[in-house]
Amino acid sequence: MRLFILPSSFQGEEMVRLEGKEYHYLVRVLRKSEGDSFNASDGKGTLYYATVEEITPSVCTLRVQRRGPLERPFPEITLFQCVPKGKKLDLVVRQAVELGVSRVVPVVSRFSVPRWDSPEEKIKRLRRIAKEAAQQCGSLEVPEILDPLPLGAVVEFFQPKEPERLGLFFHQAPLARTTLHQYLSIYRKAVALVIGPEGGLAKEEVTSLEEGGFFPAYLGPSVLRTETAPVFAVAAVQIILLERLAWKLHQEP
Amino acid sequence: MRLFILPSSFQGEEMVRLEGKEYHYLVRVLRKSEGDSFNASDGKGTLYYATVEEITPSVCTLRVQRRGPLERPFPEITLFQCVPKGKKLDLVVRQAVELGVSRVVPVVSRFSVPRWDSPEEKIKRLRRIAKEAAQQCGSLEVPEILDPLPLGAVVEFFQPKEPERLGLFFHQAPLARTTLHQYLSIYRKAVALVIGPEGGLAKEEVTSLEEGGFFPAYLGPSVLRTETAPVFAVAAVQIILLERLAWKLHQEP
Repeated sequence: MRLFILPSSFQGEEMVRLEGKEYHYLVRVLRKSEGDSFNASDGKGTLYYATVEEITPSVCTLRVQRRGPLERPFPEITLFQCVPKGKKLDLVVRQAVELGVSRVVPVVSRFSVPRWDSPEEKIKRLRRIAKEAAQQCGSLEVPEILDPLPLGAVVEFFQPKEPERLGLFFHQAPLARTTLHQYLSIYRKAVALVIGPEGGLAKEEVTSLEEGGFFPAYLGPSVLRTETAPVFAVAAVQIILLERLAWKLHQEP
Repeated sequence: MRLFILPSSFQGEEMVRLEGKEYHYLVRVLRKSEGDSFNASDGKGTLYYATVEEITPSVCTLRVQRRGPLERPFPEITLFQCVPKGKKLDLVVRQAVELGVSRVVPVVSRFSVPRWDSPEEKIKRLRRIAKEAAQQCGSLEVPEILDPLPLGAVVEFFQPKEPERLGLFFHQAPLARTTLHQYLSIYRKAVALVIGPEGGLAKEEVTSLEEGGFFPAYLGPSVLRTETAPVFAVAAVQIILLERLAWKLHQEP
């Protein structure tokens, strides 16, 4: 653990009580004892320093001190993932969080097959996965998992034509008129990536995304499975941003 | 299916008999009928054009014509993956193949925990996964899955100091003296990526890799799980190579 994430009920109090799962994780899994100190986050961008004050058989009390806001070195990345079959979304959320996305929005598109028996349970489960993944990889914030959105609402939601925003959709065909390096050569506060479902995006969906201000991006000729495409897309964007100072465009546009 | 992969027993004959699983895949899953034609590969870099000549209840006969060698647009990527726990290697192999590696070598390092009940069965299983993934993503060749190698033999095996070869190992600490863009700004025929196990690489392992000619590479501050690190590493290398003509180094070394 690089950063312990405080309970979502935390409002900045000096003393925090952990019970149930959070107690179990800190005391049994991480084996923290009275007097141990570690970094913690409220999951909303603020860093705290926490010390274990007391451990009883069912409650652990932490004393927390505010350390200040966490810096956000990178553009915020939102992954709009068209819902794939079965449990694939679990893996997508876990890996996307590890790779540093700020938000995952499940999207219902024409060819997506979201046969969720209990949508509320599913979203709860995804939020739990996101929290665990953020905790494990020392992420500064717990990424949001939003309720599912129809594809037709993605443009309205993200507003890719606003300044400092970049919307990309990934498509099997090389529709892209330019490279990710070029798209990312200009600073953006927010980047959105739209990934289609198993059956891809429908023609009219591609048209409406393009008209709304999303640009097509291309990841090479390999036909990627729905659970690998988002990982490739996020990883590609991240390495280009991470190494932003190392490269420049071959030909300035 | 973009490219059907011929049985490994294929030696360039004009007529190829498919039985068992391969019969099932072509006739039942892909629903090919007599007279259907499609591209096929021998899994070793040669493209064929195949036509279904005859289908009986248990045998399918293909007529194949050689089309010539497949081009290899990219450096060949070898993934040396320190063996993770449980079934994680299955996922690593599947995703790495989709992302275009040519070879996966399971590596036994100091902190890897390879409790394989039956190593032969495990390798067979990984080869089957690699073949299926290659088939599914239209890859031109079936990546090799080699028998496990001790970490101490990786340098000898890959020879990173030979011309046009680049060996990188990925490490949680920012040991890297430069960026992936810089490492990949020079053309290489072969690139090797070494990924540690859950517990990371031991200090003496890092030293021996560096002395052998491997360079440290860095994927940012996130602590990635063993099954996500190789995907990030391969994806990062691929996008930088795919877009090689779009960027140049900010400062020539």
